[in-house]
Amino acid sequence: MLENKKIILAEKDIPTQWYNMQADLPTPLDPYINPRTGKPATKDELCQIFPEPIVNQELSTERWIDIPEEVRDVYKLWRPSPLIRARNLEKFLDTPAKIYFKNEGVSPSGSHKSNSAIAQAYYNMKAGTKRIATETGAGQWGSALAMACKMFGIECVVYMVKVSFQQKPYRKSLMQVYGANVFASPSVQTEAGRKVLEKDPNCNGSLGIAISEAIEDVVTHQNAKYALGSVLNHVALHQTIIGLEAKKQMEIAGEYPDIVIACLGGGSNFSGMAFPFIMDKINGTHKNLRAIAAEPSACPKLSKGVYAYDFGDLSGFTPAIKMYTLSHTFMPSGIHAGGLRYHGASPLVSAIVKAKLAESTVIKQTEAFEAAVTFARCEGILPAPESSHAIRAAINEALIAKEEGKAKTILFNLSGHGHFDLTAYDSYLSGNMQDCDFSQEEVNKALKDLPKIAE
Amino acid sequence: MLENKKIILAEKDIPTQWYNMQADLPTPLDPYINPRTGKPATKDELCQIFPEPIVNQELSTERWIDIPEEVRDVYKLWRPSPLIRARNLEKFLDTPAKIYFKNEGVSPSGSHKSNSAIAQAYYNMKAGTKRIATETGAGQWGSALAMACKMFGIECVVYMVKVSFQQKPYRKSLMQVYGANVFASPSVQTEAGRKVLEKDPNCNGSLGIAISEAIEDVVTHQNAKYALGSVLNHVALHQTIIGLEAKKQMEIAGEYPDIVIACLGGGSNFSGMAFPFIMDKINGTHKNLRAIAAEPSACPKLSKGVYAYDFGDLSGFTPAIKMYTLSHTFMPSGIHAGGLRYHGASPLVSAIVKAKLAESTVIKQTEAFEAAVTFARCEGILPAPESSHAIRAAINEALIAKEEGKAKTILFNLSGHGHFDLTAYDSYLSGNMQDCDFSQEEVNKALKDLPKIAE
Repeated sequence: MLENKKIILAEKDIPTQWYNMQADLPTPLDPYINPRTGKPATKDELCQIFPEPIVNQELSTERWIDIPEEVRDVYKLWRPSPLIRARNLEKFLDTPAKIYFKNEGVSPSGSHKSNSAIAQAYYNMKAGTKRIATETGAGQWGSALAMACKMFGIECVVYMVKVSFQQKPYRKSLMQVYGANVFASPSVQTEAGRKVLEKDPNCNGSLGIAISEAIEDVVTHQNAKYALGSVLNHVALHQTIIGLEAKKQMEIAGEYPDIVIACLGGGSNFSGMAFPFIMDKINGTHKNLRAIAAEPSACPKLSKGVYAYDFGDLSGFTPAIKMYTLSHTFMPSGIHAGGLRYHGASPLVSAIVKAKLAESTVIKQTEAFEAAVTFARCEGILPAPESSHAIRAAINEALIAKEEGKAKTILFNLSGHGHFDLTAYDSYLSGNMQDCDFSQEEVNKALKDLPKIAE
Repeated sequence: MLENKKIILAEKDIPTQWYNMQADLPTPLDPYINPRTGKPATKDELCQIFPEPIVNQELSTERWIDIPEEVRDVYKLWRPSPLIRARNLEKFLDTPAKIYFKNEGVSPSGSHKSNSAIAQAYYNMKAGTKRIATETGAGQWGSALAMACKMFGIECVVYMVKVSFQQKPYRKSLMQVYGANVFASPSVQTEAGRKVLEKDPNCNGSLGIAISEAIEDVVTHQNAKYALGSVLNHVALHQTIIGLEAKKQMEIAGEYPDIVIACLGGGSNFSGMAFPFIMDKINGTHKNLRAIAAEPSACPKLSKGVYAYDFGDLSGFTPAIKMYTLSHTFMPSGIHAGGLRYHGASPLVSAIVKAKLAESTVIKQTEAFEAAVTFARCEGILPAPESSHAIRAAINEALIAKEEGKAKTILFNLSGHGHFDLTAYDSYLSGNMQDCDFSQEEVNKALKDLPKIAE
């Protein structure tokens, strides 16, 4: 009798509630600050760009929030996602550690982003939204939202940073297959885009410009709302389905992890995997659990940033958020893990790290890809560059366990597949890939641009 | 209580035996003919390029053949694959038909090809093979074999048709991630390649040239063998795991299909899905089952070809095979479903069609892509161009069921995902895609090149 590799749940085992980390924080979150008034952003202000049910979730401190049946029904297209024991990787490393991973790459859009996209599209549909605008960089969020909008009959408009639009045409095509309108940003669709193009017709675009275009799109169209794929509390909430499923699966395996690992960009993926376990650390049932956020050396906000109020975007359009940040003016190097190139960490993740309930580790790009190739050769699955940071951190912990001779149980989240990232693998395999690290001095220079918000 | 979408089996439910269609043929297969001797190819001749256990399977008429535990163990990386009820598609079509599909796109290499690649790599390992050479066109077989060889510690050498090597760099990179040596064919690695390059340094290559290079590689290296991803009996045998799993899953759903559909290139995918059901048609338990091979209008061997001896490759290196063929000199148009561009149908599929145990339908490229986009928007999954031919055929049957008002049960195989085929989707969505059909006259012209083999 061979050993099992996968732990599979039935569709009926898809969790019926999301876990809200806000209920268990040692101290409540600091409010978002409206930069124009200098005062906490009101619910009405948030409702100008988000539908009310989403704003309610953003502000809620209820521990458990019901997942609507319609959302669970769409989740069933790919959920529950498998939990897999990486037995081949364990053997290759010759480690006494057990390595488990949750495979979120099985979603139609190829990453965990669909978990929140489906929920956001549903609540928008219920609130009467006819059009959702968003921005996307590498395109994972854009494709997840495009697919989600199609499921609930909502028009989807994506402003995609022009350099990605041109360099990653496949993500753009995938969004179009799902019926979305995709514009290279800066575009002529908006006043903000036209202004940029007037000054510089060849502008490559940036996430900051794309956010401005998406928000202008929302306020200039009827029944239009905005959607964001990371950072915010409601996104973290929706993603907890990952960790909640993983807990059930680990229980079936007769295990509880000593270490939980996920990569960190804006924070949605780390929140999703780690929060349901950190709940147990807070309530005392698993005090010794370690939760590790694997961040890229090109954008190390938890490890080298500060915990302070900052804007969510380069242009300062968004409310100021209390978070670990490298400053909204910090320009991360152009690493292939585009989803990790964000200057700040979600307020919930930041609060958890500040309270020493989670830790961070810094991974160099080449180390991440070395781990990715090892993983693909052992387990078959080609990981996304973002997820490869988590794999590297898991391998590092498994090798420490080997040195210590301890049979630790390690669980990491494979946030997505790398089928659209083979150019990056090519660069790694041909020896052309470089690391792009920042010194504390370089970070400190950007930190001078933090906004002055009275706390 | 919501309805289930997926029917998931446990790892212990992975079949323990493959089904050998040769056991149940109305008349035995005609032998392969050695073109140099004009006589049936002997076992010793076949063993020059294939390991003995594979040759034994090729010639076996045993009904059930055990799947080695080591092969089942690797299968567990992704098998059992899910059977999914396409409820959203049914609603969209407003059909009384139930549409089920088996998703083979969940394999690490992204298609059903891994089912045979793993088995072939295993038997080669047992037989002492140190190096496997193969050719690949679009790259699905090459990536499946590269991954399989890595699992069993065998060196993998892939001769990839140069035009694909250049136009589809992602498939090449994937093979390299799995550790394979990939050469653009014609290459300077072989005498055959060098000869071609001498005459035409800019030659784009062809599957025929690549086969010559792979076979030369085998005979000029120690402990080297050749591997083929379709057409042959042992490949069809390994693929029957698809249909055997699907039967178990349909039974759990309380169903038996009225119609089973798969696309047809060389025949491995159709064999895999259909043979275990055709067994029931032959033994009389399900006499009315219809098995439909969906072939592209650009390469309609079952519908417009003849049943005759022909070579497997353009250059006439391979033994002559009795099969439905458009002739080895037939040049299919450059459709995006590269995996369906083969002039012949596997001898087993051909025998089954000749005996009227299966039928064929011809699908135009644009019809296939229209179905693919509809499917992606309903079910989330982006299908491979090849698989889209099966989807089109399934939709056609579901619409006939609607006209007739009959609640038929339709089952098709989704042989792979389309993550590496977004250029093709781009071409379809932008309205630039064309159909490439052949008239019977054009086919008849090629058929004049059939070899003269006494039967």
